[in-house]
Amino acid sequence: MILDKINTPNDLKDLTIDEMNTLADEMRELIIKKVNTTGGHMGPNLGIIEATIAMHYVFNSPVDKIVFDVSHQCYPHKILTGRKEGFTNPQEYLKYTGYTAPEESLHDIFKVGHTSTSVSLATGLAKARDLKKEKSNVIALIGDGSLSGGEAFEGLDNAAELGSNMIVVVNDNDMSIAENHGGLYKNLKALRESKGVCECNFFKSLGFDYLYVDDGNNIEKLIEAFKKVKDIDHPIVVHIRTLKGCGLTVAEQNKEAFHWIMPGTLDEKPEQSCEQLEDYNSVTNEFIIKKAQEDSSLIVVNPATPGVHGFTPEFRQRLGCQYTDVGIAEEHAVAYCSALAKAGAKPIFTIVSSFVQRTYDQLSQDLCLNNSPITMLVYWGGLSNGDATHLGSFDIPLISNIPNIVYLAPTNKEEYLAMLEYSYSQNDRPIAIRVPNIPLVSSGIKDNTDYSILNKFKLIEKGEKIAILGLGNFFNLAKELKKEIKSKLNIDATLINPIFMTGVDCDLLEDLKSEHNIVITLEDGILDGGFGEKIARFYGNSDMKVFNYGGIKEFTDRISLDELYDRYHLKKELIVEDVKTYL
Amino acid sequence: MILDKINTPNDLKDLTIDEMNTLADEMRELIIKKVNTTGGHMGPNLGIIEATIAMHYVFNSPVDKIVFDVSHQCYPHKILTGRKEGFTNPQEYLKYTGYTAPEESLHDIFKVGHTSTSVSLATGLAKARDLKKEKSNVIALIGDGSLSGGEAFEGLDNAAELGSNMIVVVNDNDMSIAENHGGLYKNLKALRESKGVCECNFFKSLGFDYLYVDDGNNIEKLIEAFKKVKDIDHPIVVHIRTLKGCGLTVAEQNKEAFHWIMPGTLDEKPEQSCEQLEDYNSVTNEFIIKKAQEDSSLIVVNPATPGVHGFTPEFRQRLGCQYTDVGIAEEHAVAYCSALAKAGAKPIFTIVSSFVQRTYDQLSQDLCLNNSPITMLVYWGGLSNGDATHLGSFDIPLISNIPNIVYLAPTNKEEYLAMLEYSYSQNDRPIAIRVPNIPLVSSGIKDNTDYSILNKFKLIEKGEKIAILGLGNFFNLAKELKKEIKSKLNIDATLINPIFMTGVDCDLLEDLKSEHNIVITLEDGILDGGFGEKIARFYGNSDMKVFNYGGIKEFTDRISLDELYDRYHLKKELIVEDVKTYL
Repeated sequence: MILDKINTPNDLKDLTIDEMNTLADEMRELIIKKVNTTGGHMGPNLGIIEATIAMHYVFNSPVDKIVFDVSHQCYPHKILTGRKEGFTNPQEYLKYTGYTAPEESLHDIFKVGHTSTSVSLATGLAKARDLKKEKSNVIALIGDGSLSGGEAFEGLDNAAELGSNMIVVVNDNDMSIAENHGGLYKNLKALRESKGVCECNFFKSLGFDYLYVDDGNNIEKLIEAFKKVKDIDHPIVVHIRTLKGCGLTVAEQNKEAFHWIMPGTLDEKPEQSCEQLEDYNSVTNEFIIKKAQEDSSLIVVNPATPGVHGFTPEFRQRLGCQYTDVGIAEEHAVAYCSALAKAGAKPIFTIVSSFVQRTYDQLSQDLCLNNSPITMLVYWGGLSNGDATHLGSFDIPLISNIPNIVYLAPTNKEEYLAMLEYSYSQNDRPIAIRVPNIPLVSSGIKDNTDYSILNKFKLIEKGEKIAILGLGNFFNLAKELKKEIKSKLNIDATLINPIFMTGVDCDLLEDLKSEHNIVITLEDGILDGGFGEKIARFYGNSDMKVFNYGGIKEFTDRISLDELYDRYHLKKELIVEDVKTYL
Repeated sequence: MILDKINTPNDLKDLTIDEMNTLADEMRELIIKKVNTTGGHMGPNLGIIEATIAMHYVFNSPVDKIVFDVSHQCYPHKILTGRKEGFTNPQEYLKYTGYTAPEESLHDIFKVGHTSTSVSLATGLAKARDLKKEKSNVIALIGDGSLSGGEAFEGLDNAAELGSNMIVVVNDNDMSIAENHGGLYKNLKALRESKGVCECNFFKSLGFDYLYVDDGNNIEKLIEAFKKVKDIDHPIVVHIRTLKGCGLTVAEQNKEAFHWIMPGTLDEKPEQSCEQLEDYNSVTNEFIIKKAQEDSSLIVVNPATPGVHGFTPEFRQRLGCQYTDVGIAEEHAVAYCSALAKAGAKPIFTIVSSFVQRTYDQLSQDLCLNNSPITMLVYWGGLSNGDATHLGSFDIPLISNIPNIVYLAPTNKEEYLAMLEYSYSQNDRPIAIRVPNIPLVSSGIKDNTDYSILNKFKLIEKGEKIAILGLGNFFNLAKELKKEIKSKLNIDATLINPIFMTGVDCDLLEDLKSEHNIVITLEDGILDGGFGEKIARFYGNSDMKVFNYGGIKEFTDRISLDELYDRYHLKKELIVEDVKTYL
């Protein structure tokens, strides 16, 4: 294998084009095999193998600095920068993260996982280089999909003014996770179709010099282009047309499905039963379809993550003009939804917890200050074993400390549906619902709660001495804890389903004082700024002892839930140990 | 006066061009007089009088909908939409806000005060119109300065795909608050200089139709242009060149100084002493100049608000390449700073509390996850009598619940300087400092605290029974409260200056338990998700009674501080009343 000889990017420099092509084949095979084993980003990495080889052949990393946008396309880069055993050796498959990670290699400059950041980051590197009077190339590699995010535009707008070396490689595979959305993409299409010469040019309009490479999966052409721009003294965009999933037919043909795959996707599988298990996605989407048929002003808005929500191409097609994928543009999505609601439409905005962070000011100003009645569904909220870049543990502090919005935590299917109905039918305020991040639980009993009575917690079982507030995903833990307390301490604890994350039920909390001296809160997120602290504040001047359980304020990186629950004492036995001395 | 006849936009329809020109003169005079009396946005409003008259002449508000970006240029609109007494009658000068306000008029659709939102909001209105099969024009009026914000780009990118009526009026006065920054502005210049015909066109590259109006202060030309685009069936940009401060020579000549003015700016004033009082701006800027001379890698980064920080044109010129105004691009600013620091430069990022909200994800992902050692100075943090759109009461929950960053609250000049020194010289983490939002206090004694010992609160005076934690701006209130407690309750309370908003001093808090039974926290911001709740959580399972004082989670709108302090019991007498029964 050629790869045997490659331990640093420097080792590429002696290869011929033919050898590099062979290397690309070897890397492709390794990536396909590994990703199919562990799961991960397939299409983005297969498309960028040639460009990665060419970049490392022409430039001198780490003196020259390459910033990967999202960095979900960094697998080839990892293979070439001393981490190939993470691909060649199945025992080491999980050794390295799926994103750039400075702790792994000098060739990784930033820990990155959210989109649209690379140009801004690269601009900072370039400016620091200039201030320190150093010489080097700074390269941002950004996909066409990431260009729709506001931060990318802000970065481009500023990078163009840098007046020194700065190379933005636009990896244009004509796809986001799903198809692209936005006027910009017509321009990229025109540029591709004209081989880069059409007069109207987004990048030039921002002041960039511009170079087009039509065959972005051809190492020789790419090397030629990168050599042209190496050591350039001003900002330039190198626009390369690549093929997402290149070299794996099924991925080339199913770009959306093969953006990120589950383990074993490529393996032949026995015929499976067609029956789809009910989950929160199916329940949500059934609700949406039903309402959309009844009400032509219903509109689903999503920022480029349809797969997360089970919005299949068929589902999107069925909704037609009642579905807007805004692209990676969370800020726009929130303002757009606010205005839709103000004008009498019925927006349902779906977003992943980790990406809610991308639109705080719009939640506050465009939405909440205007009190627009939208329904916002937050997915994947909760502690997780995920990458540090994609944690879902911050949305409670983020959303619940903004005025006017109501943030609800359902604990089963019926509650969730009742909240959806309530939110959809009301016109008073923005409502966010944290879609449970656990397997669907059904009570089988229709929930008739009036959720317009704000901050009314549900008293599920009245007991004594200890009251447990089990929020959303952790209501089940609360139930288990109640049993544990009974069995270990022989106390019939009170069980409460708080429902509301944005406020406290003063009456109920006040009532608890008479027959309880301990309140335990359980929340699936960090404690700082979260739900439990509001309870602690309420009881601050009372004799009630309050124990808040949730995550510590920290970025965790692929730590198993079991380990996190140990660390945070989010286990019934540990909690009983903690509180029993206070009885 | 022509204005006597104008009570709704409809009343404009019968006027001749000459009469409208006279009306513009009348409005100009009223705006100059009022703004000079009350303070407010002068330049933006003087520049947009003609366009506002022309828009209301051609379009039919409120059926046709006009969305004002920032809406600091809505004074002419208010005059024409039933609120002229707010300008003609000095007794009513304060009756209306300086921004669009739906509670005032049907012609105001959104409460707006932050930039770059109008296109997204207008896109939502247009889409709702289409879903409901209604007919109307939707107009977004956005200044050139606002175009640099990511949300504006996301909005344009999506608006271009709408496929129906949508008119974006770009009010190009070649200025932000200060001068513009970004590659885009070269394109706007080329468009102005070519009278809109140059081939490279940012708006067209996004898929917009395009119309240029060279004399954007000429009512007749504007009416002609707006008539052309009225009822258009696709998105179009009408790019109008206007003069900021038009009609007031001193404002035309000093565009930055006259963007927003203090009351009486135009009045002749007696010669004043040249001596400048020391304040936190002057202290900061002296520190910056000194360090910048010693270290060429120091760089000040600011998102288009130099005036707030006292960064005069001379100051900026003096820093030269060590100063970056990124334009209105807070997201970029944070990522840029993170990378500057990673590459060994020394960024000092200055930002207004209300605008920190525009960059949450970048604080979390680009900055804190990468633990880049930047210095972030947050200005104007605290409760205020300001507009609902510009409150400074949310930055503590926002910043202090993100991992890794340290957020410091100095209470006097010497502490502030010591923190600046510490932050500037360290390489461990991002540090934010909340620049005191109160008159400068100097102890006269150099502060030698080692701020690298994280979360170490300062025990100022050790007493008993009651401990007061007076954070930042409210340390003075804590001192007063201590005196009040002595005088009313004859207790020598303990006085603590917590310094750290991002963590708690467990040792000190633990120690307090032995001789105290009440802890009072005072913070200048909302309580939800803030500092006090962290203290309440710490003491949750103890006998300590905790009283948290700060703001309620709400959008307040021009409520006097005195009234707010009453409402929130942020007065020493009220606090003593609250706690005395718990002794």
